[in-house]
Amino acid sequence: MQDHSRLQGVRRPGGRTARTRAAVLEAAMAELAEKGYAGTRIEQIAARAGVALSTVYRRWGNLDGLIQDLVNDITVEQPIPDSGALESDLAAVGRIIVGLHRHPVHRPWMDALIMTAIREPGSRLLLSETIQARIRRAAVVVERAVERGEIPADTCADEVIRMLAAPFYYRMYVSGEPVTDDLAGLSAARVMAAVRAGAVRDPGAAPR
Amino acid sequence: MQDHSRLQGVRRPGGRTARTRAAVLEAAMAELAEKGYAGTRIEQIAARAGVALSTVYRRWGNLDGLIQDLVNDITVEQPIPDSGALESDLAAVGRIIVGLHRHPVHRPWMDALIMTAIREPGSRLLLSETIQARIRRAAVVVERAVERGEIPADTCADEVIRMLAAPFYYRMYVSGEPVTDDLAGLSAARVMAAVRAGAVRDPGAAPR
Repeated sequence: MQDHSRLQGVRRPGGRTARTRAAVLEAAMAELAEKGYAGTRIEQIAARAGVALSTVYRRWGNLDGLIQDLVNDITVEQPIPDSGALESDLAAVGRIIVGLHRHPVHRPWMDALIMTAIREPGSRLLLSETIQARIRRAAVVVERAVERGEIPADTCADEVIRMLAAPFYYRMYVSGEPVTDDLAGLSAARVMAAVRAGAVRDPGAAPR
Repeated sequence: MQDHSRLQGVRRPGGRTARTRAAVLEAAMAELAEKGYAGTRIEQIAARAGVALSTVYRRWGNLDGLIQDLVNDITVEQPIPDSGALESDLAAVGRIIVGLHRHPVHRPWMDALIMTAIREPGSRLLLSETIQARIRRAAVVVERAVERGEIPADTCADEVIRMLAAPFYYRMYVSGEPVTDDLAGLSAARVMAAVRAGAVRDPGAAPR
């Protein structure tokens, strides 16, 4: 698992630039959680962070650039699991999802983004891009399993990660059932069964 | 598949009581889609439907009772698939989900309910109860497969339906990838592989 202290926020040691970045990202998370994507203004983030607006524009361009950086910041904190077996790597990816969604700082602004994505195309696009980047990153565990010869070579790596992640989000945002600790292992085992049966192939692959 | 004309709304032949119910449910869908759960008032639904407020209170009690009736109304329109094989029954359940979420009348108020459930406990509880009732109803296809001896007897029927449904909602509300026509068949095949491998058992069942 990731070093839990890194998940407490984006505070970290470093020079003035690093402190500015940390202050702006923290202000962005707070504004997003309070006001949602539509209600968040880059001017208010700069004011809240005590940073010149020109600095924020120069570094991030706009709110979307800032949110991308926020998601990257969380994502790079999480090492990609590499246990040597796909099922335990998938369970570790599942535990990262659980950890983020139980997190007191990250959960509120993620909820805000999911909520506003339902009605705003801009928010929808941003959420899709960030989720797809996270899927791509986690898909490396599947590609390594293909290289090891552990699973069929035509397995669709991105689709394996989507299948793994879907039950967590379904419980969180749709059915409302609790995301229990055992869900990471259960979801990993189910995905493995489908992968071994050749049911998670690239769409272009020939049918069995 | 269900008779598509039934999904156009809740208009149907019948006496005055049936017409009143149809008018109120239709007004409720419109108000929910426009204003969300938090902004919807039973007084405005009654006014929009041209029905006395006392009639609405007498019949449905409150907004939650009205939404339950709305969900029931959609649910009973959909016959439970019974093809004799679990995989094709699951694919049919998947197509029902696709149909509802492409539906011009039902999609907006369902979106509104999912959105408000993120921040409001009352809306969350209502959504959970309605989704869980729909899971229970669809789980009959799994129970029939157990009775036929097609799948392990200790398969958790509700969990099979959750696993089937999760990828649709994940795409719709999280990753934003399109819900394609082939997803129903793909999801059904993946669930079947996991069920056959004994990976979707009742939590209380002994481990393999």
